[in-house]
Amino acid sequence: MKKVAIIGASGYSGEELVGLLLAHPQVELVAVTSRQNAGQTLAQVFPRFANHPLAKTLLFSEPSAERLAGQAEIVFLALPHGVAAEYAAPLLKLGCRVIDLSADFRLRSAELYKDFYGREHPAPELLRQAVYGLSEIHRAAIKDARLVASPGCYPTSILLPIIPLSRAGLVKSTGIIADSLSGVSGAGRKAELDYLFVECNESVRPYAVPKHRHLSEIEQELSLAAGEQVTIQFTPHLIPVNRGILTTLYLAPEQHFGDAKSMQELAAKISDCYLNAYGQEPFVRLLDEKTLPDTKNVVGTNVIEIAWRLDGRTGRLVVMSAEDNLVKGASGQAVQSMNIMCGFSETTGLL
Amino acid sequence: MKKVAIIGASGYSGEELVGLLLAHPQVELVAVTSRQNAGQTLAQVFPRFANHPLAKTLLFSEPSAERLAGQAEIVFLALPHGVAAEYAAPLLKLGCRVIDLSADFRLRSAELYKDFYGREHPAPELLRQAVYGLSEIHRAAIKDARLVASPGCYPTSILLPIIPLSRAGLVKSTGIIADSLSGVSGAGRKAELDYLFVECNESVRPYAVPKHRHLSEIEQELSLAAGEQVTIQFTPHLIPVNRGILTTLYLAPEQHFGDAKSMQELAAKISDCYLNAYGQEPFVRLLDEKTLPDTKNVVGTNVIEIAWRLDGRTGRLVVMSAEDNLVKGASGQAVQSMNIMCGFSETTGLL
Amino acid sequence: MKKVAIIGASGYSGEELVGLLLAHPQVELVAVTSRQNAGQTLAQVFPRFANHPLAKTLLFSEPSAERLAGQAEIVFLALPHGVAAEYAAPLLKLGCRVIDLSADFRLRSAELYKDFYGREHPAPELLRQAVYGLSEIHRAAIKDARLVASPGCYPTSILLPIIPLSRAGLVKSTGIIADSLSGVSGAGRKAELDYLFVECNESVRPYAVPKHRHLSEIEQELSLAAGEQVTIQFTPHLIPVNRGILTTLYLAPEQHFGDAKSMQELAAKISDCYLNAYGQEPFVRLLDEKTLPDTKNVVGTNVIEIAWRLDGRTGRLVVMSAEDNLVKGASGQAVQSMNIMCGFSETTGLL
Amino acid sequence: MKKVAIIGASGYSGEELVGLLLAHPQVELVAVTSRQNAGQTLAQVFPRFANHPLAKTLLFSEPSAERLAGQAEIVFLALPHGVAAEYAAPLLKLGCRVIDLSADFRLRSAELYKDFYGREHPAPELLRQAVYGLSEIHRAAIKDARLVASPGCYPTSILLPIIPLSRAGLVKSTGIIADSLSGVSGAGRKAELDYLFVECNESVRPYAVPKHRHLSEIEQELSLAAGEQVTIQFTPHLIPVNRGILTTLYLAPEQHFGDAKSMQELAAKISDCYLNAYGQEPFVRLLDEKTLPDTKNVVGTNVIEIAWRLDGRTGRLVVMSAEDNLVKGASGQAVQSMNIMCGFSETTGLL
Repeated sequence: MKKVAIIGASGYSGEELVGLLLAHPQVELVAVTSRQNAGQTLAQVFPRFANHPLAKTLLFSEPSAERLAGQAEIVFLALPHGVAAEYAAPLLKLGCRVIDLSADFRLRSAELYKDFYGREHPAPELLRQAVYGLSEIHRAAIKDARLVASPGCYPTSILLPIIPLSRAGLVKSTGIIADSLSGVSGAGRKAELDYLFVECNESVRPYAVPKHRHLSEIEQELSLAAGEQVTIQFTPHLIPVNRGILTTLYLAPEQHFGDAKSMQELAAKISDCYLNAYGQEPFVRLLDEKTLPDTKNVVGTNVIEIAWRLDGRTGRLVVMSAEDNLVKGASGQAVQSMNIMCGFSETTGLL
Repeated sequence: MKKVAIIGASGYSGEELVGLLLAHPQVELVAVTSRQNAGQTLAQVFPRFANHPLAKTLLFSEPSAERLAGQAEIVFLALPHGVAAEYAAPLLKLGCRVIDLSADFRLRSAELYKDFYGREHPAPELLRQAVYGLSEIHRAAIKDARLVASPGCYPTSILLPIIPLSRAGLVKSTGIIADSLSGVSGAGRKAELDYLFVECNESVRPYAVPKHRHLSEIEQELSLAAGEQVTIQFTPHLIPVNRGILTTLYLAPEQHFGDAKSMQELAAKISDCYLNAYGQEPFVRLLDEKTLPDTKNVVGTNVIEIAWRLDGRTGRLVVMSAEDNLVKGASGQAVQSMNIMCGFSETTGLL
Repeated sequence: MKKVAIIGASGYSGEELVGLLLAHPQVELVAVTSRQNAGQTLAQVFPRFANHPLAKTLLFSEPSAERLAGQAEIVFLALPHGVAAEYAAPLLKLGCRVIDLSADFRLRSAELYKDFYGREHPAPELLRQAVYGLSEIHRAAIKDARLVASPGCYPTSILLPIIPLSRAGLVKSTGIIADSLSGVSGAGRKAELDYLFVECNESVRPYAVPKHRHLSEIEQELSLAAGEQVTIQFTPHLIPVNRGILTTLYLAPEQHFGDAKSMQELAAKISDCYLNAYGQEPFVRLLDEKTLPDTKNVVGTNVIEIAWRLDGRTGRLVVMSAEDNLVKGASGQAVQSMNIMCGFSETTGLL
Repeated sequence: MKKVAIIGASGYSGEELVGLLLAHPQVELVAVTSRQNAGQTLAQVFPRFANHPLAKTLLFSEPSAERLAGQAEIVFLALPHGVAAEYAAPLLKLGCRVIDLSADFRLRSAELYKDFYGREHPAPELLRQAVYGLSEIHRAAIKDARLVASPGCYPTSILLPIIPLSRAGLVKSTGIIADSLSGVSGAGRKAELDYLFVECNESVRPYAVPKHRHLSEIEQELSLAAGEQVTIQFTPHLIPVNRGILTTLYLAPEQHFGDAKSMQELAAKISDCYLNAYGQEPFVRLLDEKTLPDTKNVVGTNVIEIAWRLDGRTGRLVVMSAEDNLVKGASGQAVQSMNIMCGFSETTGLL
């Protein structure tokens, strides 16, 4: 049993992570921290877990890198960006492996971080060793990583569908548009008027147009895949569901398809490309030509659904994905990374 | 008091129309028809209107063009496409003016109708005289129309934001993408599994990708505005709200804006364009640079909200709109057309 | 045109009241106050009203009894309890008539206030002159009132169904149980974790069991109607809708109904009782024996629906009501009181 | 690995049961039947399970007792009442053990069945051998049962809180009121207008007042516990959540509690009673005096939450419970029964 801990376990991602780790057969959750809940039991903070054997003995504590390093081999950080870095550095120094769910270590460039997050990066020296924790793409690097930067929820829903196409040279790197719809848990557990039930229910709205912070990591990873600098258009929307992200991507195929035959050829290439990339992936579900993604089929699971359609009228490729923002988009893929790092079967605790 | 009637008043648009006409100070609702509800009072079919003076005396009847033509000067058709045309022809012959909320008379071309609706047009000879009832765009023609084809809900949310820009030559006619999110009432009051509460709640999904029927009227009207054939990309999504459409449009400005100055110039042109087009329109709300559309601010009203952002990173113009699919997207704008046709103040019964 | 003002117009009831008064044909809304929004226009605070003629000229101001008394004849207080009393006293002294939507003047006894609200009453000398603004019950007294205490949302849904039965001696004053379900707007526009979308959506929960504050006014009014001290059981629940209260009442008929005949007789008496009390009331909808209340049929209206069933198995009378907590349960009935006070037709601006 | 099958696996309870059995470590799901889905794979019918190893090989088949009896030792019936009995008889004859989720075998009396279900019982001879599958109450009898009648969702939420109090003589058998709120999945996957998203969202309504069918099994089991005939009042309400039942019970303690001391004594007895009954039960969560049930804390789990309050003002005991209607109220407790029948640990596959 590998010993693991979570710093900042009181948000929605943190709660989801607690649930996954409690149910995981090969790890023991030895510590959870939360400034606001320190001293309370797991059962008090999360009634949902109150029947778990640990619920009345596992106490939330004040976060302390020193103490946690003495207790756990792997430490998850489920903290706001900017705060996570403060804990990562000492934990790494003390020998822990760290899986950070914040944005702090996702970018390779401290300048880019400053541009998008509006502050100096708190630990730029760690950026080089951090591995972007998109398991299906960076599995080998994750295996030996000391510091994994788990991807954002929107980026996951955008990168997994595009990267194989991009690597295969099937789509252009220019003109990419990502239109995403997110459930309200994506905003975190914050007491703000904007996220009150009455303000979100029976409401649909775009936000952070046109420069959402997640653009930085999306473009970094797309550029890596394409071998050239990629700039995309991204519009997030808030919709009244608890969980789920639905992303619609507008892509331009490299190959023109002016008639039925060339369209069929291109379709075959795209189909092969996805099958090669994800046919054996346990957490990617490639939908058939009659099915479109629906968040209700992935919520509560670590699966991302992907479907695509060629549009003969416009010459575009439309790709759609659905995921649970708190699982595949956050805690689930963090556990997937942990499984890889520890040599466990990658699906352990996630099916 | 102008006498009006509704054929097919039992769906969601029909119910909304009943409400608007009951509250309208210059018309009298003299007949409502519905095959399934014939013989029942308004109060029985729609408890919501049960306290209205007419609620216990106005009976739903079987639809009959002859009888209705004897009772009403203006007849609204809130019927499925294909069925509306059956009633329009005799009603027009009998001297009624007709406002059709279905898709039957929105296209100028019977061939296009067949391509998108999969059947021969039932009354092609009427297509020439029908006026597309987008009040802000075709006000003059609506005034004298005998047959108004009230626009679809998605088209309204797409056309009103684009047409002024297109007419002014500010955006290209190519590469337009419309990504729309609609509440479930848009699917109509139909007992189908797909629209059950449990299937829609906590679900988000695209549908009808890539060739939704509304594309035909959208492209027809955009082509008219641009003076050339326009083909667009359109992706509708179903989201768990009762009402509301949020549309995000991706447009390419004709003018390149590579630096702050050219961006400012273009922004000024766009702002002027919208002010000229809609500054005096009572039902178009142009949002300022700090505000984005939110369906909750338009639901239950005949207003469409429009906001836009230039993206210096991608060179695109992103325009967003919000409307109530049952009001501005259907019954409200049908009443707006009626007001124009009757010489009433255009906002009567709609504010 | 009667001049009216609202102190504390930024909450949900306040917003609803603004909407009703803007649309009211016989009043002019001359001032709205809000500490947090002072200096902003109506359009900025409530985008929903942005197309109203006053939207850009009516500015939110800091609350000041002196200034408002110079502007308006009638002042609505939409403030938290405890705060409303501070404004009521000077406004009354300066000659205004006051309609208070808070709980401050609903009780006749300052001791009872202290027992339920946990603090000394801030203006006990005003309790004697306040009239409990349940229009259907206290219409005559409201007409000449200087200070109307508009009832709470739960009390309205409980009192209107019970009082006629109680006055007619048809039900016992003992053993009454009221089980109520309320939409989240009932909790107010407060940035608290408990009312976040994610905490309320897909959640149902009782709260304030067993001693909710509204019990005090409910029991006061039921005691008045019964002519004896009444104590009831009341359980409020929070459910994931924006608006609406559904109340189920369990009552013991005075008359035993052991067989079909006595049951029929009692049913006739109850039916007559309700018809006498509410048959002519524009805002009470008595449902027939095949229909049960549904909040969706009253939301956005000032109507309360009432249905009842005798249960031959248990000997009980079950009465159910549905209302919009922000309209009939708050702002709508406050406007109804205003109409009575001003001699307007009672339904003006409310149908 | 015990081989199990499900007849009627296409409804909401059936889908939940499929999920639980697929994840259960000690059973193998060898057959699922559904008239409408026969020939389709599990992956096609339930995309949610599409990544399970069986998803593409397990085909839905036409129901056939003979064939299933050759494949499985335990057969679950997730069919409408009236239909389940048709399969139970041959399956039992062929040696299978049967767990029926319908109402067909819950009553001991065929007359009572006819009174509440409006038809002759289809297999009255089986009623004597059926065991009511409320695990916490009838564990011993379930162990050896050939035919388990799994309780209804409402009954579970009502019986588990009352039975211990009733057995201990702490509450009266008369005057019991149960007020319940259910999510829409309780109505089943039926294409009916009443359960459309738009009809349920932003709606709250009682139904089946005053004689819901579940009363029959509730009263049967309460009578057994009390040792005398019990008649209760029960009001179900439909609320806009997918899952969850919240029940509020109004009970009269046998012992009067007029002062603080007697109230404390009674509270201690109730507390002890529940601890004795459920202190060791893995699926009953007794909440402390500061916490009230919330469906969001039990949805997706087999747990029922119970809280209670003595009301010194009214002399009543209010007990509240929350459960997931599809898990503890249906498929979860059916699996719990199976675990008992098979000698597995009772929590296997349910934690």
